[in-house]
Amino acid sequence: MPFTLVIHGGAGKITPGMLNKEEEQKYTEGLAAALDKGYKILQNGGTALDAVVDTISVLEDNPMFNAGRGAVFTKKGLNEMDASLMDGSNFMAGAIAGVRNIKNPIQLAREVMLHSGHVLLSGSGAAEFAINQGMTMTPDEYFFNQQRYDQWVEIRDTNFTQLDHKGDNLKGHSADPGYKFGTVGAVACDEQGNLAAGTSTGGMTNKRFGRIGDSPVIGAGTYANNNTCAISCTGHGEFFLRAVVAYDVSCLMEYKGLSLKDACALVIKDKLVKMGGEGGLIAVDAKGNYDFCFNSAGMYRGMRNSEGEEVVAFYG
Amino acid sequence: MPFTLVIHGGAGKITPGMLNKEEEQKYTEGLAAALDKGYKILQNGGTALDAVVDTISVLEDNPMFNAGRGAVFTKKGLNEMDASLMDGSNFMAGAIAGVRNIKNPIQLAREVMLHSGHVLLSGSGAAEFAINQGMTMTPDEYFFNQQRYDQWVEIRDTNFTQLDHKGDNLKGHSADPGYKFGTVGAVACDEQGNLAAGTSTGGMTNKRFGRIGDSPVIGAGTYANNNTCAISCTGHGEFFLRAVVAYDVSCLMEYKGLSLKDACALVIKDKLVKMGGEGGLIAVDAKGNYDFCFNSAGMYRGMRNSEGEEVVAFYG
Repeated sequence: MPFTLVIHGGAGKITPGMLNKEEEQKYTEGLAAALDKGYKILQNGGTALDAVVDTISVLEDNPMFNAGRGAVFTKKGLNEMDASLMDGSNFMAGAIAGVRNIKNPIQLAREVMLHSGHVLLSGSGAAEFAINQGMTMTPDEYFFNQQRYDQWVEIRDTNFTQLDHKGDNLKGHSADPGYKFGTVGAVACDEQGNLAAGTSTGGMTNKRFGRIGDSPVIGAGTYANNNTCAISCTGHGEFFLRAVVAYDVSCLMEYKGLSLKDACALVIKDKLVKMGGEGGLIAVDAKGNYDFCFNSAGMYRGMRNSEGEEVVAFYG
Repeated sequence: MPFTLVIHGGAGKITPGMLNKEEEQKYTEGLAAALDKGYKILQNGGTALDAVVDTISVLEDNPMFNAGRGAVFTKKGLNEMDASLMDGSNFMAGAIAGVRNIKNPIQLAREVMLHSGHVLLSGSGAAEFAINQGMTMTPDEYFFNQQRYDQWVEIRDTNFTQLDHKGDNLKGHSADPGYKFGTVGAVACDEQGNLAAGTSTGGMTNKRFGRIGDSPVIGAGTYANNNTCAISCTGHGEFFLRAVVAYDVSCLMEYKGLSLKDACALVIKDKLVKMGGEGGLIAVDAKGNYDFCFNSAGMYRGMRNSEGEEVVAFYG
């Protein structure tokens, strides 16, 4: 059976000329390193779930991406992270929201899935659970990043939130096309035909009020079902929550018989656009078909499969 | 155009003999009072959204139900509440998770929907938002209830959680048929054909780690879409999250052409049963068709519509 790994590092106003050569190189290397990690797992007969968790961990460890180490700062100057994970072979899922001092939020999401009896844990309670599970707490300094800090300092005295770290405009409540949605995600199909999906994010710069987006919500930011697809989203989370984006793709395949590509296109390029929601998703089905789909200018993305194909791309 | 209001006060092992006459009377009166409140709004040409919020507020103010005033105690002896609201006419939604000292969580969910620019706020951040919106904070004493407190004292030194306050067994991670899922909800169709849905809960007795169930999650515990249905769920939240229950009913109607009743039955009595998930939901469509659907022994429920029909029932 073929196997496939697909990743994203966020969608948004990512256009040629926005990045210099050195930055392009860093993103390319970051995405390729993540793909390599997960591909090796799949190649060695590992599960889609393990590939997704380890791939996302590599992206979380890379400060170029807004997740884990590279998480943005909240209104209070903290790094609060969200992540979720779903196993398409048994519909098990785990997620965390608003959690601090966790080096790899996606690994905590896996602990939640396997050992909590729950699906979604939040805030300091989720960190308590992590401690109970023997996970190491990581000091705030690990998450410090001068560029992210400077972005936060620039807007911390306003009520604006910022969805990106480059080419952004200040924004309040309404959608603004000039940002990137910093989130990472991976979906995989292993050689057994099992699917898995995961997503991890630091959310919005200067976010407050314990805002939770779509990333930790099963059905919205993440979904996996062996019979249909595995999906990880990135975008303006509020729209993805209201549109239940990830599960909508699955339902269009299961109930309407749409192909993976057609289902993704209908949700992202038609329904979501009509609602005013910007962003994208990555998708894979149990036959190893995959899709990148976004209605924004670009999306950091990559794919590697058992057919020997490899893709790393940024722009639309 | 006909209008319809449907409510629930939780599902589970609710069987004849479990309640004495006085308790039956109290639940009947509580459900009828909530129905009266929302019905008058609809009768006077009010919106489905207003009817849902005001109806749920009545249930939240009634200590018989595990929401608002009657919220159960967490592992730390606190009352942490979740609620969500969705307007089927424009897909707007608001929700809060793990929030303390808010008299009517459903009203805070409406504030989130209308004034935050976000969909889901959590923890102390959501309370800060409430204060900024001028909402009055309600002291812990308001939420004190001797019966709920005694239930908590009984299990607080264990790692068990309890899904009910009557007829319960101690339970850990696995599903136990001997509980009631204390949650309240309302769905409405107004005379304009607009739909709305809302859900509010105190969650599980002795819950910890900032556990969030399906109640505050759009697509899982609550969903509304004028073209299909409005849904509010109650049950073992982890299963409802993984099955994306509320949106699944909507998709089965929209993509497969199922009737409201057939879609509800397929999700609750077939798919959810196969996953091992217990609970139920209430549903209404834009023609005023309604359904109560549960795979548990009973569900506190009620309905009142412009045809003059009125239902208040507990048992299966």
